[in-house]
Amino acid sequence: MSGVRAAAERARAASRALQSLPTARKDALLRDLAGLLRARSAEVLRANALDVEAATAAGLAPAKLRRLTLDGRGIEQLAAGIEQVAMLPDPVGRVTDDRQVASGLRVRRVRIPLGVIAMIYESRPGVTLDAFALCFKSGNAVLLKGGREAQQSNAAMASLAREALERSGLAGEGLAGAMTDLTPISREEVWEMLTLSDLIDLVIPRGGEELIRAVVERSRIPTIQHFKGVCHVYVHESADLDRAIKVCVTAKTSAPATCNAAECVLVDRAIAAKFVPRLIAAMRRAGVEVRADAESMRLAWSDDGDLGLRLAEEGDYGHEFLDTVVAVRIVEGVTGPGSAVEHVARYGSNHTEAILAHDPAAIRAFVEGVPSSCVAVNASTRFNDGFQLGLGAEIGISTSRLHAYGPMGLEELTIGRFVVEGDYHTR
Amino acid sequence: MSGVRAAAERARAASRALQSLPTARKDALLRDLAGLLRARSAEVLRANALDVEAATAAGLAPAKLRRLTLDGRGIEQLAAGIEQVAMLPDPVGRVTDDRQVASGLRVRRVRIPLGVIAMIYESRPGVTLDAFALCFKSGNAVLLKGGREAQQSNAAMASLAREALERSGLAGEGLAGAMTDLTPISREEVWEMLTLSDLIDLVIPRGGEELIRAVVERSRIPTIQHFKGVCHVYVHESADLDRAIKVCVTAKTSAPATCNAAECVLVDRAIAAKFVPRLIAAMRRAGVEVRADAESMRLAWSDDGDLGLRLAEEGDYGHEFLDTVVAVRIVEGVTGPGSAVEHVARYGSNHTEAILAHDPAAIRAFVEGVPSSCVAVNASTRFNDGFQLGLGAEIGISTSRLHAYGPMGLEELTIGRFVVEGDYHTR
Repeated sequence: MSGVRAAAERARAASRALQSLPTARKDALLRDLAGLLRARSAEVLRANALDVEAATAAGLAPAKLRRLTLDGRGIEQLAAGIEQVAMLPDPVGRVTDDRQVASGLRVRRVRIPLGVIAMIYESRPGVTLDAFALCFKSGNAVLLKGGREAQQSNAAMASLAREALERSGLAGEGLAGAMTDLTPISREEVWEMLTLSDLIDLVIPRGGEELIRAVVERSRIPTIQHFKGVCHVYVHESADLDRAIKVCVTAKTSAPATCNAAECVLVDRAIAAKFVPRLIAAMRRAGVEVRADAESMRLAWSDDGDLGLRLAEEGDYGHEFLDTVVAVRIVEGVTGPGSAVEHVARYGSNHTEAILAHDPAAIRAFVEGVPSSCVAVNASTRFNDGFQLGLGAEIGISTSRLHAYGPMGLEELTIGRFVVEGDYHTR
Repeated sequence: MSGVRAAAERARAASRALQSLPTARKDALLRDLAGLLRARSAEVLRANALDVEAATAAGLAPAKLRRLTLDGRGIEQLAAGIEQVAMLPDPVGRVTDDRQVASGLRVRRVRIPLGVIAMIYESRPGVTLDAFALCFKSGNAVLLKGGREAQQSNAAMASLAREALERSGLAGEGLAGAMTDLTPISREEVWEMLTLSDLIDLVIPRGGEELIRAVVERSRIPTIQHFKGVCHVYVHESADLDRAIKVCVTAKTSAPATCNAAECVLVDRAIAAKFVPRLIAAMRRAGVEVRADAESMRLAWSDDGDLGLRLAEEGDYGHEFLDTVVAVRIVEGVTGPGSAVEHVARYGSNHTEAILAHDPAAIRAFVEGVPSSCVAVNASTRFNDGFQLGLGAEIGISTSRLHAYGPMGLEELTIGRFVVEGDYHTR
């Protein structure tokens, strides 16, 4: 038997024991793990320093290097995050429906864990314990395949999780396979893992588009896709223009490299002359490069030699800049030819769209017209996040309309099944 | 552009118009379609007779031939089923969560259609209109690929759906692509369809295990798996044995070829001597062939030359007989080595398991111990069905723990997305 199959079989066995593990024991382990992480932070930071050193020597891109680097504050946030997961309600056993049907049967829908989850991710080493905490609390065993560049950091964190499983006695009760750090495994073994549909229930790839496409291409296991976020803010003519400026600018600037940052602002023609020059000026003051359509250019143009404003090319729409760059375009109202909804249908990524407006009919038409996982009305796209939306935490944001659409929290790591009670009912 | 891509693009365009089509217009179309089906039943039956004739000449297996054959009663059931879908509540727009989070944002989860669904199925021609009705009511466009053997029947029914779309005026409002009958298309075109992840949101294969495996193997689109049903009935020592006999026998005999029929009865050792001989005798009287473990054979054996009782081979456990054949095995209680839960973990298919018992601890341990999509307590496995469980209808039964687990009704043809309202909230 291959190493990866053996690991998946241990995970399957652990998932059986996990599915009915009492909440109190899960929470106790997570709190212990948070304490362990704080007590042993120096060890984790040393391992991380080795990764950062190697990655620097190998010339890793600065953005990836930033995501790879841990510090004391990051460790504390991670520990606090694990404690927060311990405090969230246990989704396992939750009854979402309970009714008596015509035959007299009592039919309930009860949430159970998904089973075994394989997580494939890049750079951010914090995902190792984040993902373990969410999977464990929701009763799932997890196989972790982190990036090669974060190998030492991930190994250090995984060993803390193993230690917590040992200390709690759970490892001795068949739960040693509740978490397996698969690194280092070869690319071929990863592809092999993606065929083990008898042992693994769900694959979650998190990282660049290339990684996700490669996983989706090869996976024979249901896979949650977290593709790019090309988020739009649409400013309707009924919007409060003064307040709209601030929403547009912060949606771009508060965290430009995240998937819920705005990449494009759409402005109604009716307010373009008033709004576009102010919007572009505000974006420029905030250090944002603007790529605007020809009409916006005419409206905003001043001959001050500003190199940060230029004519948008076709490729600038639907592009995830992940940087302080924004596209701007004038549109013809909410729906119909040349409209905001039509632009989103063509260039959007089903992630997040925002409308700024006071007209209820416009709001309704926009919300119904865009198919995105999250539509924000008079709020920034940046709110599409598990914490912000009240899920407590998230393991990722799904952009495919199956199982979960938008942030996936603990609830989305379970599934409802039917429990039927009768009095020796036959049919 | 290939024909299948063009069809998928028309479906995508229709799905945009469908996502906010008012319930009343959807229901009116479905009622009209039911009437059309009744009025034109002779036409459909003639087309079906051609299929049956060709299939008979080609030597199609009797079970498949039965599934292929339509009669007046079948047409009436189909029409009544479509009317019933029209009467079910519209899942689109249903709000499943509505709360104000700490930032003051109002966060709602609202169901929206999945988008475009590709349905690949065999034999049963009724699926054509069944699937259309369910997809249409839930706001989804559907691409239908039925079996070659039902080509004429499917074409006749699809043309009624097209006619209903024309008559209602919806076809002229961009909804002509709400249903496309793809037959006849080549196998290569089907495989091509399974790569169109930009245009199709979900694939539902319904049919034999081979078909489903071939689809899962090739699909780059999320796929709901409806695998086989190897359903178990476990008779605990605390069961009412007189009533248990009837549940066991009918679970096998009321519809032996369905996926929720029982394939194996597990009997507690403590009651084996009392129960097994009665169970086997009752099964034999009902015309069921029994394949029993050695101990059951010893308990039930009578030298009357009964050829319908024989020693089970390893391959008889975990086997979907789809016929009047049942396996019987004695087990060592609910959990632990040799137990009912262990047998199900090894041989079950995650479809349906039943326990007959009065002891609450045993019931609880069984329900928690088996991971199946439906667990029936003191009821037959045959109740795992969309109608019986109160969903109103079903498009299939999922045996994979993603998106839906168990029967998929209208609600499962939609997904919850986030609608967030603020007062120019920034972050």
